[in-house]
Amino acid sequence: MNNLRGKTLRASGFHAPVCGEVDSFADSLIAIDENGVIEAVHRPGEPDYDKALRAATDGGALVDLPDGAILLPGFVDLHIHAPQYPQLGNALDVPLEVWLQSHTFPLEARYADLAFARRSYTVLVDDLLASGTTTAVYYGTIHDEANRLLADLCIEKGQRAFVGKVAMDNPAECPDYYRDKSVDAALKATAGLIEHIRGHPDNEDSLVRPIVTPRFIPSCTDDLLAELGALAKDHDCHTQTHCSESDWEHGYVIDRHGMSDTESLDRFGLLRAGTVLAHGNFLSASDMEVIEVRQSAVAHCPLSNIYFSDAVFPLKAALRKGLRVGLGTDISGGPSASMFDSVRSTVSSARQLERGTDPSLGRDERSTQGDVRIDFREAFHLATAGGGAAVGLPVGAFAPGFQFDAIMIDPEAVSGTIRLWPDLYEGDQVLQTILFTASRANIALVWVGGQHRSGTPDRQ
Amino acid sequence: MNNLRGKTLRASGFHAPVCGEVDSFADSLIAIDENGVIEAVHRPGEPDYDKALRAATDGGALVDLPDGAILLPGFVDLHIHAPQYPQLGNALDVPLEVWLQSHTFPLEARYADLAFARRSYTVLVDDLLASGTTTAVYYGTIHDEANRLLADLCIEKGQRAFVGKVAMDNPAECPDYYRDKSVDAALKATAGLIEHIRGHPDNEDSLVRPIVTPRFIPSCTDDLLAELGALAKDHDCHTQTHCSESDWEHGYVIDRHGMSDTESLDRFGLLRAGTVLAHGNFLSASDMEVIEVRQSAVAHCPLSNIYFSDAVFPLKAALRKGLRVGLGTDISGGPSASMFDSVRSTVSSARQLERGTDPSLGRDERSTQGDVRIDFREAFHLATAGGGAAVGLPVGAFAPGFQFDAIMIDPEAVSGTIRLWPDLYEGDQVLQTILFTASRANIALVWVGGQHRSGTPDRQ
Ligand SMILES: [Zn+2]
Ligand SMILES: [Zn+2]
Repeated sequence: MNNLRGKTLRASGFHAPVCGEVDSFADSLIAIDENGVIEAVHRPGEPDYDKALRAATDGGALVDLPDGAILLPGFVDLHIHAPQYPQLGNALDVPLEVWLQSHTFPLEARYADLAFARRSYTVLVDDLLASGTTTAVYYGTIHDEANRLLADLCIEKGQRAFVGKVAMDNPAECPDYYRDKSVDAALKATAGLIEHIRGHPDNEDSLVRPIVTPRFIPSCTDDLLAELGALAKDHDCHTQTHCSESDWEHGYVIDRHGMSDTESLDRFGLLRAGTVLAHGNFLSASDMEVIEVRQSAVAHCPLSNIYFSDAVFPLKAALRKGLRVGLGTDISGGPSASMFDSVRSTVSSARQLERGTDPSLGRDERSTQGDVRIDFREAFHLATAGGGAAVGLPVGAFAPGFQFDAIMIDPEAVSGTIRLWPDLYEGDQVLQTILFTASRANIALVWVGGQHRSGTPDRQ
Repeated sequence: MNNLRGKTLRASGFHAPVCGEVDSFADSLIAIDENGVIEAVHRPGEPDYDKALRAATDGGALVDLPDGAILLPGFVDLHIHAPQYPQLGNALDVPLEVWLQSHTFPLEARYADLAFARRSYTVLVDDLLASGTTTAVYYGTIHDEANRLLADLCIEKGQRAFVGKVAMDNPAECPDYYRDKSVDAALKATAGLIEHIRGHPDNEDSLVRPIVTPRFIPSCTDDLLAELGALAKDHDCHTQTHCSESDWEHGYVIDRHGMSDTESLDRFGLLRAGTVLAHGNFLSASDMEVIEVRQSAVAHCPLSNIYFSDAVFPLKAALRKGLRVGLGTDISGGPSASMFDSVRSTVSSARQLERGTDPSLGRDERSTQGDVRIDFREAFHLATAGGGAAVGLPVGAFAPGFQFDAIMIDPEAVSGTIRLWPDLYEGDQVLQTILFTASRANIALVWVGGQHRSGTPDRQ
């Protein structure tokens, strides 16, 4: 099971190509080509199934998932601050602006030390792959060497990724010890990372891609924002930033620019197809329309929002408007590296948005939102195919033309936390149980582009 | 490390005997007597440390925790519906009253089948011990044999527990297929379980105790409630029930009895010292005063409250009133069996109560609550010593007279999810990282009363 390129996998599992619908499959044949792309999927009973099974068997290409193992698409984590991984689970008790200045900037500044960067980024990429994150959208730091190292590690370890040099040059909001020294310096470093990644000799099929990354408007001068928009266009490159995350940040942009975050980013050319806007808690209806027209996307980070947004992103409203949305852990604003936790808190936070939290208010006074519930089917889609669509990658579903990025769940793993009761629960109830109860020990194998990237092929 | 009775353990770790304060210790000596009770604790630098170390060494009684391992008190889970374990992670999308009738009662009714009960309860007790729950407060079902089996399994596997026969005889709220046939039948079964547990020949030091368990007021006739209160008094037995959990249930009691849940339970004699009231989301200030006077306690179940209460329990207000409070998973109303998740959601739900959730409201209009934040120190206390104090057991802290109920965290466990950075974070930041990022694989060893009850003594 090390390398599934050129193989046909017979597997049972779940995926959710359409938001809100779970498609379960049993003993299906997934034919994977020499580049790790799915060529065909055949289900038992379909006309070509027997022929495909015979061909795979005769050609020695058939690989069977172990009995009881369950195949899921790998997760797409749309929002990760790579340098903040050591801080995971810490510093959750201060507002965003304090968190940045007293905890996060000092930590990120340490990545000037390449040895520290290597130690931290090695653990991060290994842990995220082991957690089933097959596509990662990363913020790096301001440091050229550390950023290149992060991209190199993703290529070496085989994680599909976007890696961005964080651009931040505004002396009013960034400390002297951790700031781009000029617009030109920030642009040169950004362009340098783009060239490094695109020119990397081992970066097969653009497994890793660059992404232009203004930290957020408060961190950047207008000059830098405008130049980064132009640079993204010139290099035909993805962009990412934060957008309307907290009351403070949302108000800051209105004060400085006299318009919303979204409107301001748009005039700088920073809303592009596949742009990832983290959070978006305070997006207005018209902001959402702008984002939708630009084919940009929101990275919903429910765990982080509890600590740093003081509000829940209106996900249902965004989906109703047709917005592209995926999920993000927001390491380390969110205290978990697992997209399972993002799925769970997407469901639970939507309930809390719908129903409110304050028992001293009457049931109908706790929230103004009406029915904004998100179920596990929607959350699962957002964590997989939805995230892929957000950044324009064919990942997150088992369908012809999609990359074979997948995880194998072993419900009986030693130290695992899933208990299935096949005589009691079936169909997508099994998926719901997995989504709510799985832990890292249950992720037995991880493939990216058909290649084994984490876990031990021999089941214990 | 199998049996620490009569041994002196040298260990580093954390505990929180006082709410809001974390006490960290390094290379401390914990002397455990032949009954599993802590005799003495010596810290390096204290006058008796050297003498105690020499005595333990000379007597061959010294046991060292492995380097890097971290000792924590075992968790006290105050609210577990044992029969609902197969449902964990499922059926989260319906209101409480529907959840009971269409999912939960049919599942609980299956425990008439003792083979099914054995399969389910065996897995449950094993999993909870492996998750670090050293004291469990259980609801069983209405079935005598299955309830006795649950108590027997706790005794056999060495989990400290309270086990209650669920009493529910109200034909208006309980289905024919799952209801006590009469008040007398319910009383006889309750008394029978009390005798079974107290008379069990292997129930050393009352490791397992009975608890009188009216399901909740809607499920019970007034006659039954009154008789159960009298029975608890006659047998000097703990009681547990649900209290003011949801708008529906809270309103039901006011409609039926013309008073609050708390007031009604009190007049039936069901509020006793050590009584566990699950949830309490809609307790008034005067309800809290009654509970405090009776020395009863609240089991705060934050995960379950998201799905079934539509509000967050006002924990800070309860603590300010001096209420005894502990935490519960509320399996399966809460979709996790891990008290780590209870700790995390205690912190996050308190934030959501403080700040509200609705971004369409202004920052100051989202909540009326003011500062009701709970930090990891308080949540850790509630999950350990607080839970022990709630039911009047000397567990949850490393202090003379306390049971040695403990877990050993291995931060480097295979498939674990903790990453410590000793050069960056220290003191109780380490505990915060563990509380937010640990998973079951990181729980290497579990002791109850000094005896090894889960995990593999040899570190991998
Ligand atoms: Zn972020
Ligand atoms: Zn309950």
